[in-house]
Amino acid sequence: MINYPNGQKAPKKAPKKKPLSPTSLANRGMSFENLINQTNAYYRDSDRALITKRPTPIRVVKVDYSHGAKIKEAFFEKQSTADYNGIYRGKYLDFEVKSTLSKTSFPLANITIHQIEHLEKVIAHGGIAFFLIDFVAYQEVYLLDAKKVIEVFKFSKRRSIPYQDIKNHGHIIEEKINPSLDYLTVVDQLYF
Amino acid sequence: MINYPNGQKAPKKAPKKKPLSPTSLANRGMSFENLINQTNAYYRDSDRALITKRPTPIRVVKVDYSHGAKIKEAFFEKQSTADYNGIYRGKYLDFEVKSTLSKTSFPLANITIHQIEHLEKVIAHGGIAFFLIDFVAYQEVYLLDAKKVIEVFKFSKRRSIPYQDIKNHGHIIEEKINPSLDYLTVVDQLYF
Repeated sequence: MINYPNGQKAPKKAPKKKPLSPTSLANRGMSFENLINQTNAYYRDSDRALITKRPTPIRVVKVDYSHGAKIKEAFFEKQSTADYNGIYRGKYLDFEVKSTLSKTSFPLANITIHQIEHLEKVIAHGGIAFFLIDFVAYQEVYLLDAKKVIEVFKFSKRRSIPYQDIKNHGHIIEEKINPSLDYLTVVDQLYF
Repeated sequence: MINYPNGQKAPKKAPKKKPLSPTSLANRGMSFENLINQTNAYYRDSDRALITKRPTPIRVVKVDYSHGAKIKEAFFEKQSTADYNGIYRGKYLDFEVKSTLSKTSFPLANITIHQIEHLEKVIAHGGIAFFLIDFVAYQEVYLLDAKKVIEVFKFSKRRSIPYQDIKNHGHIIEEKINPSLDYLTVVDQLYF
């Protein structure tokens, strides 16, 4: 692990590689989103939780109905909520999943005010809200409570959260074979 | 209201019109889905509940990146979950919304086994699951507990639920100005 106690910028070269277990090597053949989807499928099939991905909203402009409905023109839209939601141990969960290539911080540039407001409302209604943040360079995934992100987003001028803060305030998710990213074990510790 | 106690098929002509209040006339300029979305926006803004629509899943085949990302070929996919979910009074809700032109029954043809299994799991995890069924011909909307639909879908040969059964087992939703379809008042009575 590389630390930057003096706030120095990370070097441009690749980080020193950690020795990897065959498991994490195998897992990392998959995108972060696929790892989460696989984990959720495992939770669903083992009746541990029911968590689903909200499909990417797409604005459809033109549809050709000549052979069934074929979309000919459409655009991706930004999610105004978070990526995933569901039920676990009778509680409502809502969370956003983000991957970053940065070695020094988690950028908030791709998070919208609508998503922040959505997560604030989740908390106000008694639900559980968090981010799963994948630091690709370190092959580390953290669960960070949404309150921390809301706080930085709304009450500071910073447009990112330092990696070191996430190490301190977040909780690392263990990568396993099945489920590949067992984030509910961290949810157990934090919210129950 | 036209009843069919003898199971007789509904006549093909338009049903006898109920006298309509200006409100329901105005509302019905909107699709059923829009009424639900408007209702959910009202619930969200008044902090009563946080309920969101899952976007229609779309399988993207071809994207043109020459001027931003423009989808050139894609197909609508079936929802494998229900249309809406969210949190209300600390509880997880999940429900499907269907409109029918039939005067005699609610057809199950557009409901998939994946949706039925999804709603079964919602109930098993302690969530609230139901259908909102719009009988367009009568301008009546019913909330029907998902257990009833699951039962018919899985344990009978019927591919529809008679209108009269829905009148007996379901709960009519009052149409108002704001929110237009106050289904949470029925949820209060049934599940709390």
